[in-house]
Amino acid sequence: MRPIRLPIALLIFSLGLAASALAEDGYRLWLRYEPIADASLAKSYRSSIGPIEAVATSDTAKIALAELERGLEGLLGGELKRTGATLLVGTGDAKHIAKLKLDLSGLGEEGYLLTRHKKNLVIAANTDQGVLYGVFAFLRQLQTQRPLENLHVETSPKVDHRLLNHWDNLTRTVERSMAGASIFNWFDLPYYVEPYYHDYARACASVGINGTVLTNVNSNATVLRPQFLEKVAALADTFRPYGIQVYLTARFSAPVEIGGLETADPLDPAVIEWWTDKINEIYTYVPDFGGFVVKANSEGQPGPQSYGRDHAEGANLLARALAPHGGFVMWRAFVYDFEIKEDRHKQAYTEFTQLDGQFEPNVSIQTKNGAIDFMPREPFHPLFGATPETPHTLELQITQEYMGGDIHLVYLAPMWEETLEADTFARGAGSTVAKVVDGSVFGHELTAIAGVANIGNERNWTGHPMGASNWYAFGRLAWDHQLSSQEIADEWTRMTFGNAPDVVATIEEMLLESHQTVVDYSMPLGLHHIMYPGHHYGPGPWHDQGRPDWTSTYYHNASEDGIGFDRTATGSDALGQYAPEVVEKWGTPESIEDKYLLWFHHLDWDYEMKSGKTLWNELCLTYQSGVDRVAEMGQQWDSLQGSIDAQRHARVAALLKRQLEDAKFYKDACLAYFHTFSQRPYPAGVNAPEYPLEHYKNFELYHVPGHPGEQW
Amino acid sequence: MRPIRLPIALLIFSLGLAASALAEDGYRLWLRYEPIADASLAKSYRSSIGPIEAVATSDTAKIALAELERGLEGLLGGELKRTGATLLVGTGDAKHIAKLKLDLSGLGEEGYLLTRHKKNLVIAANTDQGVLYGVFAFLRQLQTQRPLENLHVETSPKVDHRLLNHWDNLTRTVERSMAGASIFNWFDLPYYVEPYYHDYARACASVGINGTVLTNVNSNATVLRPQFLEKVAALADTFRPYGIQVYLTARFSAPVEIGGLETADPLDPAVIEWWTDKINEIYTYVPDFGGFVVKANSEGQPGPQSYGRDHAEGANLLARALAPHGGFVMWRAFVYDFEIKEDRHKQAYTEFTQLDGQFEPNVSIQTKNGAIDFMPREPFHPLFGATPETPHTLELQITQEYMGGDIHLVYLAPMWEETLEADTFARGAGSTVAKVVDGSVFGHELTAIAGVANIGNERNWTGHPMGASNWYAFGRLAWDHQLSSQEIADEWTRMTFGNAPDVVATIEEMLLESHQTVVDYSMPLGLHHIMYPGHHYGPGPWHDQGRPDWTSTYYHNASEDGIGFDRTATGSDALGQYAPEVVEKWGTPESIEDKYLLWFHHLDWDYEMKSGKTLWNELCLTYQSGVDRVAEMGQQWDSLQGSIDAQRHARVAALLKRQLEDAKFYKDACLAYFHTFSQRPYPAGVNAPEYPLEHYKNFELYHVPGHPGEQW
Repeated sequence: MRPIRLPIALLIFSLGLAASALAEDGYRLWLRYEPIADASLAKSYRSSIGPIEAVATSDTAKIALAELERGLEGLLGGELKRTGATLLVGTGDAKHIAKLKLDLSGLGEEGYLLTRHKKNLVIAANTDQGVLYGVFAFLRQLQTQRPLENLHVETSPKVDHRLLNHWDNLTRTVERSMAGASIFNWFDLPYYVEPYYHDYARACASVGINGTVLTNVNSNATVLRPQFLEKVAALADTFRPYGIQVYLTARFSAPVEIGGLETADPLDPAVIEWWTDKINEIYTYVPDFGGFVVKANSEGQPGPQSYGRDHAEGANLLARALAPHGGFVMWRAFVYDFEIKEDRHKQAYTEFTQLDGQFEPNVSIQTKNGAIDFMPREPFHPLFGATPETPHTLELQITQEYMGGDIHLVYLAPMWEETLEADTFARGAGSTVAKVVDGSVFGHELTAIAGVANIGNERNWTGHPMGASNWYAFGRLAWDHQLSSQEIADEWTRMTFGNAPDVVATIEEMLLESHQTVVDYSMPLGLHHIMYPGHHYGPGPWHDQGRPDWTSTYYHNASEDGIGFDRTATGSDALGQYAPEVVEKWGTPESIEDKYLLWFHHLDWDYEMKSGKTLWNELCLTYQSGVDRVAEMGQQWDSLQGSIDAQRHARVAALLKRQLEDAKFYKDACLAYFHTFSQRPYPAGVNAPEYPLEHYKNFELYHVPGHPGEQW
Repeated sequence: MRPIRLPIALLIFSLGLAASALAEDGYRLWLRYEPIADASLAKSYRSSIGPIEAVATSDTAKIALAELERGLEGLLGGELKRTGATLLVGTGDAKHIAKLKLDLSGLGEEGYLLTRHKKNLVIAANTDQGVLYGVFAFLRQLQTQRPLENLHVETSPKVDHRLLNHWDNLTRTVERSMAGASIFNWFDLPYYVEPYYHDYARACASVGINGTVLTNVNSNATVLRPQFLEKVAALADTFRPYGIQVYLTARFSAPVEIGGLETADPLDPAVIEWWTDKINEIYTYVPDFGGFVVKANSEGQPGPQSYGRDHAEGANLLARALAPHGGFVMWRAFVYDFEIKEDRHKQAYTEFTQLDGQFEPNVSIQTKNGAIDFMPREPFHPLFGATPETPHTLELQITQEYMGGDIHLVYLAPMWEETLEADTFARGAGSTVAKVVDGSVFGHELTAIAGVANIGNERNWTGHPMGASNWYAFGRLAWDHQLSSQEIADEWTRMTFGNAPDVVATIEEMLLESHQTVVDYSMPLGLHHIMYPGHHYGPGPWHDQGRPDWTSTYYHNASEDGIGFDRTATGSDALGQYAPEVVEKWGTPESIEDKYLLWFHHLDWDYEMKSGKTLWNELCLTYQSGVDRVAEMGQQWDSLQGSIDAQRHARVAALLKRQLEDAKFYKDACLAYFHTFSQRPYPAGVNAPEYPLEHYKNFELYHVPGHPGEQW
């Protein structure tokens, strides 16, 4: 072996195994501000953006200005030409903005205007918060390489309260998330404020998120103790200048657990006094505290029904104490009795429609997109449009509890779009879920939308590098539900991976097809709740033990006669809770879209689908197409090798390999199981399951993160 | 308010609030390779280090070369002068090294030689692993700004197996650590290998750590399932080129729990067969698997005594199956009966001395530095020197279970040094613990030292920025127990915070006094085990509930008569387990050092100390001096503002504030409690406790990280 002899400079990049290992670790999310590669575009930006003219007195304004400088420095290297142009930034009452005589009247408190004024560019708003949002939007124009010539963006949020819900425990475990420990380092607070709290708040603000619920809906009263309120205050102080209000979950039994009372009965005067005092105390720590999310009388959580009271009486107890401070209550509709009286699908509707009109004005019913539980696809929840007197907070799940955790690539915006655009017909055609939520259908003033966060203390925040697209998309849709999932995917991809056309086209295609893909390989054609019990990662169609509505067989009803849940009038009639127009559409297997077919109908294995195929064949082919699509995603991703950084490429490539194995496993396990009933051959083009059914039934995953049955 | 109008370039550094928030986040540990600020020194280095001449065929050699390039690039910017000098790097059998005719015969397999040869500098070893260690040592010379003129370092490790023990669970919780989740992302393995695994291995290799036990001593048999062995293999493959062997903890009842057997009796043929097969299977995944650490029949863990067998029979079962593969067993001496027969201090000695001679040659008794449990200070464990036939793995605790977790600044090397230098007199004077462990006292070939890691997935690895000094010091002492804690502190400080004289002097002084400080404000003068039960953070001198030897009162024995544990012949006679020379020294309150006084003696409150003060006064003054020293550390640290980066400065400053509050609390709680017995006034210079005793007794911390009773 002859020794090599090289000057150092030549060797550095040839052998530096780990030297650049953390160059693109994902920490910067979509706020990377990498230099614009297109030289002529960069030149044009440099010549049209002049020096900044701004007033920055509040912390929020200072943050806005710092972000603008940081963004421009990164994107353009700070070499702006002195062309006489100026970038005018500020609120309408600042002199340099006022003299432009812009009409800002439609912007409200949070909206912003990006426009040109003669040679100058303008970022204007009515508040510093609006300016901050405008700055992020302006930078987004550059990050996504849009022209500035005719710049004119005027927007304000359609929903007032746009919240992340963290299912984070005080022990730093996170329910249903896999991205490491909770970002909230409770033990170090209030002494040490992690720098990344600022970056969390920046990222949220950049997409318009203006509230965060710090604690799990499966709640712990300890967060209401003074020792923890100090910590909450430190977080609130950190988040406030980014326009982010802090909320908590309220454990209904807190008066007993930490208050020393013997009851938590919401009508008991001592309980009312305790909560009133406690809420007043919270406001001494956090003067702009947002309010509470409450999961009551559901899955073991305490609630008013434990004392013979109803949800309205429970919610109103908290709402009345919050009202003087301007706080509000999001009372979750995800409730179902421990005794199964009827199709679980129907219970929230039954409970809450009869209480409509009894809630205080500062109560919103927090309602998941569908009536079961964040399945890969659900028809919209029948409660939307069914409580004219009570607003709804739409609860979406960003973390992928039933969709492969942080291992599977699933862009969720198309699913959310489907819910938002669904028509409740509550006030005639066009009464979409989005319009129920934004208050326009019933004229509600209290409007809110919540996303269950997929964030942890992993360096890249979300584990899967693509998981951040869902955090991003949630914020963007919460601000403007009319944005399309395609537009949002395009923005996020450009900001996260750059503007190279092949990169953008490939990733966008992967993102946009990914949701249909996960549905196809796990729970296609309206199937639902066939996941492995407990950790919810992987299939468990055979699961039939314990409480029936926690099994899989309860939902798919597979037998030799066929498969599916009859929710029409001949079955549970959950369909009857929807408007007549919906009932008509979904009432027959012929009129309903295939994607919801087995959600509402029980059909023979040989039922002839719209495609002309039998149900069994269509089911098999759909499972197979999901698997094939994952394989194809792997190839698409491989084609980008060298076009994006090695670090993120390697991570996604590894995850796609596993997703493919998981998808095959899901398909094989389900088909092997359903085949025991259908007894029909697998159609051409479908790979029969690799192993006998017992193999899949016996396979057990250990220590799946985020499962509350685990320590983690 | 007039708008500001500034060119961008001027604004960037004035308002960029968060722009540089992560510049010094601690991730790089002591391998920062920042440019050498001293221009003349840099010039001199540049002129004496020529181009590298090396052979790099193995992965280890490639890593060594890459590290060298990375280090030189960082430190010197790659601008090395062509002075005719060459940096010769390689093993003795490589041509360019062989021709130098160096004597490498004393280096063994891991040692290295740094030297000059004519104009050239040389990094030579017998193996690529030795070269890797040599590269880190060479870079350390530059990082600590030592001259290269007379470079000559020749060293090899005194202990063969230098291991981290991770008390990490498969759920990613970590027992007794506060630095976030486990670094081992089990669920993502084996698919995704985190880039930071490489940096973990680099950091370990840089200080000579050559083994890692991946799992908690409170063990989980699941890690032995094939599903997890695949994951273990992925980690082993990653760590191997850095010279790091992988070990696991063996749950003694695994044959029952995952093997389907009805017994785990170590003499049962089916059990022997199961372990033999299992161990053979492990080696198919990890051909250089290191072996097992076992905690048996201790604190609820299963073990051979459950089947009427002894520790030797248990250890030998595993050892015999490991032997053909070259693996070994570290069988922990941290055992005590569930029924309290005698002073817990005595039990390990009693159990293991009678088994001496019965262990297989590939068994080492893993023995903590002291006989109780990682107290802030303990006299050395009497087992050292007491088993001439059986080697000991010295177990040190890097994580600060009883010393403020990742919140308090405590540099542990002085404490470890105290143990290593303690004389057992086993073969006459000079039979130090270090020499028992390095095998020289009894001629043992199997030598090992283990440190319980303080590492988690926090970005800076250890939570407290100073916590990394203990990881560093452990590795350095494990390599060479003759290094002084001062030398190690000097190295670490320069590598971590730079070479500015005021920075180095201040931080070194803080580090070197910090251990005595924590002892003084928590458990001075030989007091021990007076921590809060369960989470072990904070004081609990009043704790007297439950199992006596888990209480505080069992150990301090405070009453109106005095305080302390009589372990002389008039008491438990634990002292009688030591050599006569030690018994003589520690046998009277007059001859024993004050630091161990109340460990062995129960004394009247008015006992006259060497200082002339009464015991009560001395106790009070020592507590006070601990608190005062923390306050002083805060001032010392404040004086460095501006001399080190803002980010790490802010974090340590915040932590020191809290440490001061905690130290006061500890002192006040203990003095308020002991005062109920002593009934004597607080001496001048001591601040009386701020609150009545009840205040301290009623104070409860919630959700302290690392406490296994917590989810986290």
